[in-house]
Amino acid sequence: MSKVIKKLAVLTSGGDAPGMNAAIRSVVRTCAYHNIECVGVQRGYEGLIDGDFKVMDARSVRGIINKGGTILKSARSAEFRTKEGRQKAFEMISKANIDGLVAIGGDGTFTGAMIFNEEFDFPVMGIPGTIDNDIVGTTHTLGFDTALNTVVDAIDKIRDTASSHDRLFFIEVMGRDVGHIALNVGIAGGAEEILIPEEDLGLDRLVESLNRSRKSGKTSSIVVVAEGDKIGKNIFELKDYVDQNMEGYDVRVSVLGHMQRGGAPSCFDRVLASRMGVKAVESLLEGKSNYMVGLINSKMELTPLEKAIKGKTKINLELLRVSDIMSI
Amino acid sequence: MSKVIKKLAVLTSGGDAPGMNAAIRSVVRTCAYHNIECVGVQRGYEGLIDGDFKVMDARSVRGIINKGGTILKSARSAEFRTKEGRQKAFEMISKANIDGLVAIGGDGTFTGAMIFNEEFDFPVMGIPGTIDNDIVGTTHTLGFDTALNTVVDAIDKIRDTASSHDRLFFIEVMGRDVGHIALNVGIAGGAEEILIPEEDLGLDRLVESLNRSRKSGKTSSIVVVAEGDKIGKNIFELKDYVDQNMEGYDVRVSVLGHMQRGGAPSCFDRVLASRMGVKAVESLLEGKSNYMVGLINSKMELTPLEKAIKGKTKINLELLRVSDIMSI
Amino acid sequence: MSKVIKKLAVLTSGGDAPGMNAAIRSVVRTCAYHNIECVGVQRGYEGLIDGDFKVMDARSVRGIINKGGTILKSARSAEFRTKEGRQKAFEMISKANIDGLVAIGGDGTFTGAMIFNEEFDFPVMGIPGTIDNDIVGTTHTLGFDTALNTVVDAIDKIRDTASSHDRLFFIEVMGRDVGHIALNVGIAGGAEEILIPEEDLGLDRLVESLNRSRKSGKTSSIVVVAEGDKIGKNIFELKDYVDQNMEGYDVRVSVLGHMQRGGAPSCFDRVLASRMGVKAVESLLEGKSNYMVGLINSKMELTPLEKAIKGKTKINLELLRVSDIMSI
Amino acid sequence: MSKVIKKLAVLTSGGDAPGMNAAIRSVVRTCAYHNIECVGVQRGYEGLIDGDFKVMDARSVRGIINKGGTILKSARSAEFRTKEGRQKAFEMISKANIDGLVAIGGDGTFTGAMIFNEEFDFPVMGIPGTIDNDIVGTTHTLGFDTALNTVVDAIDKIRDTASSHDRLFFIEVMGRDVGHIALNVGIAGGAEEILIPEEDLGLDRLVESLNRSRKSGKTSSIVVVAEGDKIGKNIFELKDYVDQNMEGYDVRVSVLGHMQRGGAPSCFDRVLASRMGVKAVESLLEGKSNYMVGLINSKMELTPLEKAIKGKTKINLELLRVSDIMSI
Repeated sequence: MSKVIKKLAVLTSGGDAPGMNAAIRSVVRTCAYHNIECVGVQRGYEGLIDGDFKVMDARSVRGIINKGGTILKSARSAEFRTKEGRQKAFEMISKANIDGLVAIGGDGTFTGAMIFNEEFDFPVMGIPGTIDNDIVGTTHTLGFDTALNTVVDAIDKIRDTASSHDRLFFIEVMGRDVGHIALNVGIAGGAEEILIPEEDLGLDRLVESLNRSRKSGKTSSIVVVAEGDKIGKNIFELKDYVDQNMEGYDVRVSVLGHMQRGGAPSCFDRVLASRMGVKAVESLLEGKSNYMVGLINSKMELTPLEKAIKGKTKINLELLRVSDIMSI
Repeated sequence: MSKVIKKLAVLTSGGDAPGMNAAIRSVVRTCAYHNIECVGVQRGYEGLIDGDFKVMDARSVRGIINKGGTILKSARSAEFRTKEGRQKAFEMISKANIDGLVAIGGDGTFTGAMIFNEEFDFPVMGIPGTIDNDIVGTTHTLGFDTALNTVVDAIDKIRDTASSHDRLFFIEVMGRDVGHIALNVGIAGGAEEILIPEEDLGLDRLVESLNRSRKSGKTSSIVVVAEGDKIGKNIFELKDYVDQNMEGYDVRVSVLGHMQRGGAPSCFDRVLASRMGVKAVESLLEGKSNYMVGLINSKMELTPLEKAIKGKTKINLELLRVSDIMSI
Repeated sequence: MSKVIKKLAVLTSGGDAPGMNAAIRSVVRTCAYHNIECVGVQRGYEGLIDGDFKVMDARSVRGIINKGGTILKSARSAEFRTKEGRQKAFEMISKANIDGLVAIGGDGTFTGAMIFNEEFDFPVMGIPGTIDNDIVGTTHTLGFDTALNTVVDAIDKIRDTASSHDRLFFIEVMGRDVGHIALNVGIAGGAEEILIPEEDLGLDRLVESLNRSRKSGKTSSIVVVAEGDKIGKNIFELKDYVDQNMEGYDVRVSVLGHMQRGGAPSCFDRVLASRMGVKAVESLLEGKSNYMVGLINSKMELTPLEKAIKGKTKINLELLRVSDIMSI
Repeated sequence: MSKVIKKLAVLTSGGDAPGMNAAIRSVVRTCAYHNIECVGVQRGYEGLIDGDFKVMDARSVRGIINKGGTILKSARSAEFRTKEGRQKAFEMISKANIDGLVAIGGDGTFTGAMIFNEEFDFPVMGIPGTIDNDIVGTTHTLGFDTALNTVVDAIDKIRDTASSHDRLFFIEVMGRDVGHIALNVGIAGGAEEILIPEEDLGLDRLVESLNRSRKSGKTSSIVVVAEGDKIGKNIFELKDYVDQNMEGYDVRVSVLGHMQRGGAPSCFDRVLASRMGVKAVESLLEGKSNYMVGLINSKMELTPLEKAIKGKTKINLELLRVSDIMSI
């Protein structure tokens, strides 16, 4: 039987993502709304082990809804991966009379929360925060929409110089295992080709695609490459390949890097974060545990953490086709 | 029996919205992909009547995916609302051997298309383009997501000065009949109260809400007001009311106006526009007519134009509640 | 003889402007660099009277260089305009062992500082912070450059919709007594005409200019109007005039309003603020008083407060001419 | 004696920069204003040799003032560096009855123009367009201000993630021979240290600076590195050095790359471009030749091309000092 919840903790863990602060704010204010206490945990699971807690009232989160990053900071905790570490964390939590935990992050974060729940029967609820959108149980993770806009803005800028000089640009975007960012920004940025981890396009098709694109009258081209594309070459090797095997291309490489993680969250991410915070807290108050909140068909839904972790998101094949048609 | 389609026309009509150019591009390139001709019609139905057509090939739409407004221009046509006007349009269309029409716009645009289809059995397909998101049959109209980000960015700026001077701001956003923009930007902008046409909050509650907000320690506040809110006063009357009936407020008004319609479309709107253009053209090629393409549960779906026009979108009550909780 | 300075105060007063926080940060860190104490005064001269001081060390200003508004808040103080008010302020300052004051703001702020200096022989130094750029002794006030970019971005958005609908837009920008913003954004926004307080263009010339513009093939037009233009009509009366006296125009009005004051400061304003803060503190440390720091010919220079207040900035006539040529 | 000018040509050459289109627009419209013809030359000096000219009237440059890149395209021309190439160009120019040339670009562009002028006594005028700000005779080259804002915006985003994870970031910005971008964005981005080509800081000082920064309580840090810094290591070697020689840093690298060249020009760059275009054309009309137009002490001034090319811009030592103080 779940005991009455009087005090919740919230933490952010793993890579930061725009919208995490908006989610923290929502968790804190929903607690205030229901007259329960809320504490913020510093540096993810590290802070849980260290008992690095700070009481947060409704006013303490003012002015953060539009800030990138996370005011609670984030870190990877090796210690929390040990039984001893988690034991320490549980003791800290018990001493502070905390009755439940909202963990904002990606699958590493959720794995930690799930094990913690299993070992100590402690109520946990996950909020998916990662720009990669690689979590099953939500059509959008926090930060994904913002990152898309950040990347598209950068591609727009690069296209200015690509067009002025009739150049071919390879642009690397984030996505080690998934191509969601690459696929969307590729379409939105008007890319001639998109290389993603889910699909082995093969070098031959890339070459063919560039040749066709040139024949159709394009003088400059952009190819979007996900970090983890399957074509078997990193982005600089791709450049070398084209330099050595294709004539008449002036090839450049741009690796967009960490700026993709930052910035003021988009309206979409702020609203989503606000909704998720409410849902996470109220689900814990209703006695639920071990779930992740997510957006499914425009509604807030719960998915068991285990399913969220083990699942693998799929590439929208319709988008691949749209990209093909658009780059005619 | 539907005849084989060899040539399509595309037009934009009604208020412009970011993403219209991306949709035009998509229609044009999807036609090229399927080896059918495409002509752009200038100034909406006016251009249909005047036969103001321009052949568009795949290269003619380069560099427009990130441009606000519409390269085909838009206008309201009184003449097309007459039988004679539509007859002229049909003659022009016939003379130009056009076999189908993609109409991008809002419900006025769709009404025109539907009547035209009824009268001449001419294949038409609608793409919802309006920042107001007031069309049934799609969770997002083109331009809505971009407008949300534009407005939130403006509210962020106004909040800087509101906080510095401990002021109360009434900010008017677009939405004559619907509060979708107001509701989303209100949450994302951290508004204390949101006034929308769908809900008669009443002045009393506004006053109460502001008083509560002040008691909770807030020194500056933002109230987002949809153009068409039901509270019975325009935004300047609201200011006067507070000036005369509440003490200690330094009230300012900001009407965001037409800038809400412009700007480079967001990644979301560009991808949506690209998908809608493909779906619209391919649906016509499959012999379908008199539908609007839309986004439902992340998929491209068709809705009869009649239903799209007659339906009324509903406010998401969950969002209203989230707004209430967030403004504690 | 000036006594040794061991502790400085900094305040912001009057309308807020982007870059004020960067200037506060610079004042605080320059104090730390020279091992003197620094206190922040809340709400401008109000806080001086109330003794609302907060010690600020180098770390206390982290993360504010890119924030609009002012963390010290700003207010107009009626009490400081009285001898009694200033006497109270001086007592508070003496009690807190403050040896000098950096006042960030516009001419109202400087007038207060100058009188305070005269009455109590208290060292003061001014930093010009206002988006209007209406202060003599600096080519750029803090916030001016940022406001220009904010306004130009809004005009770009409005132009999208103006072009799509072949409309004439009157856009009102800030500048009650000076047309610096209007003149620069008018050129940068491609306006057909610019109405500023310094120049009485007369309605006739506006009409003529619009007619010429139309004849030259322009179908949409933008006229930028400074709040305080001399043409004798407010912006809505201008619209009515054109509606009633000119044919074939679809006229709209947009008043940009308070969003012009907010937003993250531009690189230029951040660097300028950093330089001004250093110069202001070091000038006080050198025993100087009653000056404003400013940018003249790319260098930091001092101007007596009296001259800064009494002077009147002049419109750059070259810019007026450039605007004329560009709108051919 | 200079002959009467009836027709001018304009080209862009070298690396593109935001504001080049605004300058082209200004050249074209100033020609129209003075009733002389104007032709645009495609792809810089390549187009001069090929006779790739296009007549441009006032309307042909509408809607480009806010576009990055250059509609005339840019290229480096090996052929124009030969006497034969320049001879061909002169023949093309003579055949087309062109009486003078406005060349927009950097010192390579100006060198070409100067030699061309010497060999054929052909009137030329330069407009400095490069984001690097490395041209003597103007305090600002076209594109410099825009690039600063683009880079600062990226640094703001990276700081979000740096702060959330307590990381040290090395950020590489453009500037092969000069540190103007690095110095300004370093101050504006709140960098702890700035490495520029003009100053050999030495690794020791960097290490010392980072250690001091850490002791002062900073948990995250940003070091801005110009491409061509003198410290003798590229940015990845810097990372390795810190990884191997300093404890407790989580170091990341971000190379901002080509996006720094693109984007809508800032208000400042649009106004500057407009002024420069007017000045360039009118100077040619006045019979002047072989100069570059520039901004000196807020005024348009002419500098002999030779001086512009041979001179070396100097780092503003005051800025270096401000940076030092700010990073306390």
